Amino acid sequence: MNYLLNTYSRFDVEFIRGENATLWDKNRNEYIDFTSGIGVVSVGHGNIRLSNAICDQARNIIHISNLYRIQPQEELAEILVKKSGIDGGVFFCNSGAEANETALKIARKYGEVNGEIKRYKVITLENSFHGRTISTLKATGQPKFHTYFGPFPDGFDYAKDIKDISNKIDDKTIAVMIELIQGEGGVNPFDKEDIQNLAKFLKEKDILLIVDEVQTGIYRTGEFLASNLYEITPDIVTLAKGLGGGVPIGAVITSLTDVLKPGDHGSTFGGNYLSTRAGIEVIKILDEYYESGMLKEIINYFDSKLVEIAKEFPNLFDNVSGFGLMRALKTHKSEIRDEIVKKAFEEKVLVLKAGNNAVRFLPPLTITKEEINEGFDRLKSAIFKIEGKQCEN
Amino acid sequence: MNYLLNTYSRFDVEFIRGENATLWDKNRNEYIDFTSGIGVVSVGHGNIRLSNAICDQARNIIHISNLYRIQPQEELAEILVKKSGIDGGVFFCNSGAEANETALKIARKYGEVNGEIKRYKVITLENSFHGRTISTLKATGQPKFHTYFGPFPDGFDYAKDIKDISNKIDDKTIAVMIELIQGEGGVNPFDKEDIQNLAKFLKEKDILLIVDEVQTGIYRTGEFLASNLYEITPDIVTLAKGLGGGVPIGAVITSLTDVLKPGDHGSTFGGNYLSTRAGIEVIKILDEYYESGMLKEIINYFDSKLVEIAKEFPNLFDNVSGFGLMRALKTHKSEIRDEIVKKAFEEKVLVLKAGNNAVRFLPPLTITKEEINEGFDRLKSAIFKIEGKQCEN
Ligand SMILES: Cc1ncc(COP(=O)(O)O)c(C=O)c1O
Ligand SMILES: Cc1ncc(COP(=O)(O)O)c(C=O)c1O
Repeated sequence: MNYLLNTYSRFDVEFIRGENATLWDKNRNEYIDFTSGIGVVSVGHGNIRLSNAICDQARNIIHISNLYRIQPQEELAEILVKKSGIDGGVFFCNSGAEANETALKIARKYGEVNGEIKRYKVITLENSFHGRTISTLKATGQPKFHTYFGPFPDGFDYAKDIKDISNKIDDKTIAVMIELIQGEGGVNPFDKEDIQNLAKFLKEKDILLIVDEVQTGIYRTGEFLASNLYEITPDIVTLAKGLGGGVPIGAVITSLTDVLKPGDHGSTFGGNYLSTRAGIEVIKILDEYYESGMLKEIINYFDSKLVEIAKEFPNLFDNVSGFGLMRALKTHKSEIRDEIVKKAFEEKVLVLKAGNNAVRFLPPLTITKEEINEGFDRLKSAIFKIEGKQCEN
Repeated sequence: MNYLLNTYSRFDVEFIRGENATLWDKNRNEYIDFTSGIGVVSVGHGNIRLSNAICDQARNIIHISNLYRIQPQEELAEILVKKSGIDGGVFFCNSGAEANETALKIARKYGEVNGEIKRYKVITLENSFHGRTISTLKATGQPKFHTYFGPFPDGFDYAKDIKDISNKIDDKTIAVMIELIQGEGGVNPFDKEDIQNLAKFLKEKDILLIVDEVQTGIYRTGEFLASNLYEITPDIVTLAKGLGGGVPIGAVITSLTDVLKPGDHGSTFGGNYLSTRAGIEVIKILDEYYESGMLKEIINYFDSKLVEIAKEFPNLFDNVSGFGLMRALKTHKSEIRDEIVKKAFEEKVLVLKAGNNAVRFLPPLTITKEEINEGFDRLKSAIFKIEGKQCEN
């Protein structure tokens, strides 16, 4: 790791082989993966249909510039529009941060061109996470991210929660950007009725609703979008993570098709043959999985395991949170959480941290019951070890 | 194209098959590609070694989060450090814009943590291009990009040319960010001595030199980096485009390895197995190509063709510019340029626009002499048609 900048605290393990939710390290140790690369490997490691699509595309055309038509890009755009229920168009880029930059640009141009005065302010929420570019850091409602890298752009304000948003709105406000379930913030879903009221309120005020579905999108919560689960139709939805099954891709779906004009925005790699072909295949696989009822069954099975653990160890856990396969066990204290993640790794099951006290679960959506069983057995062993220590104390 | 936002002016052609610098559309028309997806497909379309590497990786592990070690990421980082001559470390992301965001973040944190007062100002050049995020748009020294999407972040200033940079520097200046050959600006190389003097001057002042090699890097100019060609060692170099041969990837190489700490920066996809494996293979292919003398030979061959055309049509062209396979024919007027690009497309050779009057050439580095011959024959046919029209006028 000598040649890498020191930007991540890494576990000292190198995986060399993956199959669905199972990984093997250099020493042939087997791990159960409840992380899927933080919600990216939606169809599992080494998925044969996805890798066939990628191979086929790589042998032919990986990339051509957006100066020419790109068939899989057009196809994936149509799929995203139709499945999202947002009657509009799509822009492709390469990450969640880039998708959110695009959303901010659309909102701000809309705010410049429409109305008497320029509206540019974007309200986001405390504990949100929207990316690592300078502007998306500023959009992220956590003061710890607003250090070192300034001057940051003005025009952002933060609401404590959904109900507080209306207090932050003024005549310069052009958009509200939220996650429906805060992921990095600790797997905290908002109340459905609150969200629906917000959507209605913003519509009345001609303020745009941007929903950051970078983590919640592409069936992560059990529906294609969390917006579908919440039964709202945002003006702009951003996607990344699970969309390409691991191939870097971001996307923005919006009904505001008239705002950006040629020259206003672009991306060299965005929407190329490789990433959009991957996106098409990922969605095909997951559509079938959803239609067959299997996704629902696995979600329920995973849920029952989480609830069981929370009940079994009330001295460690407050509750279970999240939807679909975006879940968390909330611990009483952050030290317990840190200990669990560490011990789980030693027991060879990978889980994530989020917020202050969430042990976070983002398994591949295609995880099998056997992998779930094995993972939770290991998690329990890890917890027993901590329990033992807790008793000794 | 109905489901895409209207951000690109596209030629109405769909390519379905590619082989090195040759493309075929749906109707089996053959095109010669002098664009390589704007400098991305460095080893050509359908490169067998690259596609084998991608396939192999896709069948196994595409992506795991940066919470765990990623062998090809570490390997590619080592290659980049050693080949660049920058004794430091690497951060991986997904595009040129993200690489430049990273560079800005490193510079600004360096400017906050070192010295008496916070230094944050970054000087860039007129006619530069650094990306499409809100901050990299502001870094781009072209006023037309500073519209609609504000408030933009403060802390940028623009110099007219290399010599003007010293006039723009004040006690708040932390970095100068430049391309060595402005690509989008019109394929304009700077003078080697001016650049070397600048590098020396900045070093004396403890002001960082960031070189944006998104377009010039990875052998595009004939050497691994344009910085190698100019014989300078910048503090930060950014890469993207040609590095992954079409797989989205960006990278930042810097000697400032102490600046970013865990939590300061990150990227979900950045440096994953697929993109870094592709990067390793691309560099291996191009290293061999370079060592064998073939790259040099092709560069010279391409150059002779350009010079020939410029000489043959002095009524259209001012001169030839650029290095390596990053080249341009400068036309007397932008209308001539636009006409040539259009007519070339009709003759089935793809060329690019840049700046006001550049017909730009960025072929795959692995283009064959036969492809070059065929491409220039077609380009001449296109030019003859324009010539004809010019005579009629
Ligand atoms: C909700 C949300 N938005 C944006 C991002 C940034 O995505 P990326 O890392 O692909 O830039 C993340 C990443 O964790 C996220 O969870
Ligand atoms: C010099 C330079 N920097 C940055 C960029 C932005 O790269 P990307 O489109 O991958 O974000 C480009 C793209 O053309 C470029 O030429």
